[in-house]
Order: sequence, then C-alpha cells, then structure tokens
Amino acid sequence: MGRVTDQAGPDALDSRDSLDALDPAILARLKRDAAGLLPAVAQQWDTGEVLMLGWMDDEALRRTLTTGRATYFSRSRQEYWRKGDTSGHPQWVREVRLDCDGDTVLVKVDQVGPACHTGSRTCFEDGLLASVTGDPAAGGEA
Amino acid sequence: MGRVTDQAGPDALDSRDSLDALDPAILARLKRDAAGLLPAVAQQWDTGEVLMLGWMDDEALRRTLTTGRATYFSRSRQEYWRKGDTSGHPQWVREVRLDCDGDTVLVKVDQVGPACHTGSRTCFEDGLLASVTGDPAAGGEA
Repeated sequence: MGRVTDQAGPDALDSRDSLDALDPAILARLKRDAAGLLPAVAQQWDTGEVLMLGWMDDEALRRTLTTGRATYFSRSRQEYWRKGDTSGHPQWVREVRLDCDGDTVLVKVDQVGPACHTGSRTCFEDGLLASVTGDPAAGGEA
Repeated sequence: MGRVTDQAGPDALDSRDSLDALDPAILARLKRDAAGLLPAVAQQWDTGEVLMLGWMDDEALRRTLTTGRATYFSRSRQEYWRKGDTSGHPQWVREVRLDCDGDTVLVKVDQVGPACHTGSRTCFEDGLLASVTGDPAAGGEA
C-alpha cells in the first residue's frame, strides 16, 4: 500500500494518486448519514483519552487507512482536513476500527501535542457538565 | 424539546418526572444536527475503553445528566433508549462532558457487562480494519 504522495501541499493526497481504492468489503459495511459521513472518534492509543470527534466520508477513511495520518471531512468547510497540516499537531494512525453497525469509526492515534484547536489536549477537557452519578447499589433505577 | 412520551415501555422516565429541565447555559452551547441530535461517545470510566457511540437529543442528555443512567435516542426506532433496560447491561454515569464546539457528548460510564448487542464488551471489538501505521520518523509526511 502506499505512502506515495504529498509533494505539493497539505492536502495533496487525492484519489488520482496511486493509492488503492477503499476495499469493497469495507465499503459494503459502511452506513453513512444523509451527507455520506460517519462520525469518527479519535482516541490516544496508549492512554485511552478520547481526543475529539471528526467526520469521515469514504475518501477520508481511505486516506486515513492508507496514509498513516488521520484525515477527516470538514462539515463546515466541506473539504478534507488532514489533522495537523494547519496546526502542526498530526495524528499518527495506530489502529482503525469500524463498529458493529458500520456507522462509526474509532481511530486510535498517536496525537502530537494538543488535539483541540483551543490548545487543550482533548476537545472535552473544559466541558464538564454537572450530573448525577449513577448508583448501581440503587438497583435498576437511579 | 418535547418528546415527552414513553409511558408504556421500558423507558418510563419522562420529563413529567420531578427532574429539572436542562440548564439553559448548557442548552445554549449545544449544536445539534438537522435531526436535533448529537453524537455521544460512551467510554468506560476507568479502563478508557470506547464502548459505543449513541445519539442524544436535548431530552436524552437531560435524562443522562439527571438520572445516573446513560440514555440515548434511537434514530432507527425514533424513541428514547435507556441503555440496559432491554439488555440488562446498564451504563452508570460517572461523568458527562461536552466538547469545545458543543456538538459532541462524552459520557464516562461504568458499563455493566457487554456494551454491544453482539455480546462483545465494546462495539468496536470485532471491527479492526487493515491500515498503514503512521510513522512519525518519516517527518511531517506519511
């Protein structure tokens, strides 16, 4: 498979490059939303931290699987977004998994620096919500 | 908001119960999709395993925050789904976080038994895809 391209710019990988098309067996399992996208959870491979959630279409998934760099599709900008090209904080792919329903991707990565554009390590760091803690001792009801 | 139903089934918690409405400060931060939903990543609080991804509308989030039991909205069945009511494998809430953009929820839970309807501990267990491993030594390019 190939680490082939990326001569020209941050986003120079495209389907005209000599990378394989997405495996038909994988394609057949994907259940995309109306916009052709799947949510993709990025997790730090060793610590288990959930870093962020991005979106992938078939092509972003293909790039992620074949280049070693997590690549998403930006819903707001409607373009591919290879994590780290702008920020300098890439995600090196360690493992990619599809869930049982074929509608969610889990990308285990080695995140260089902060994952969040705010400079935080994860996008969830500052977002703690007040909540009741579940109490198993209470039985079936909380 | 709305969707105040679900008397009959396993999911009898509803907003007529004496639980508070969702905090307006939280509501103001939520960026929902066209269907009014946010993806919610469920993570085992101590091991860090990503268990599954579900969807929450405002009401599912409110129930999750106020009852101690992770509650989702089923896109296929168009109804609330309190994890464990059918399977016997509840998710006891430990912590709930909203991401920097207000468009993703992270629910840290204590998952009883398997999270996946297939009987696997997580929904990603059997879904490993073949991929290139990212190589930081290759520099900025993969």
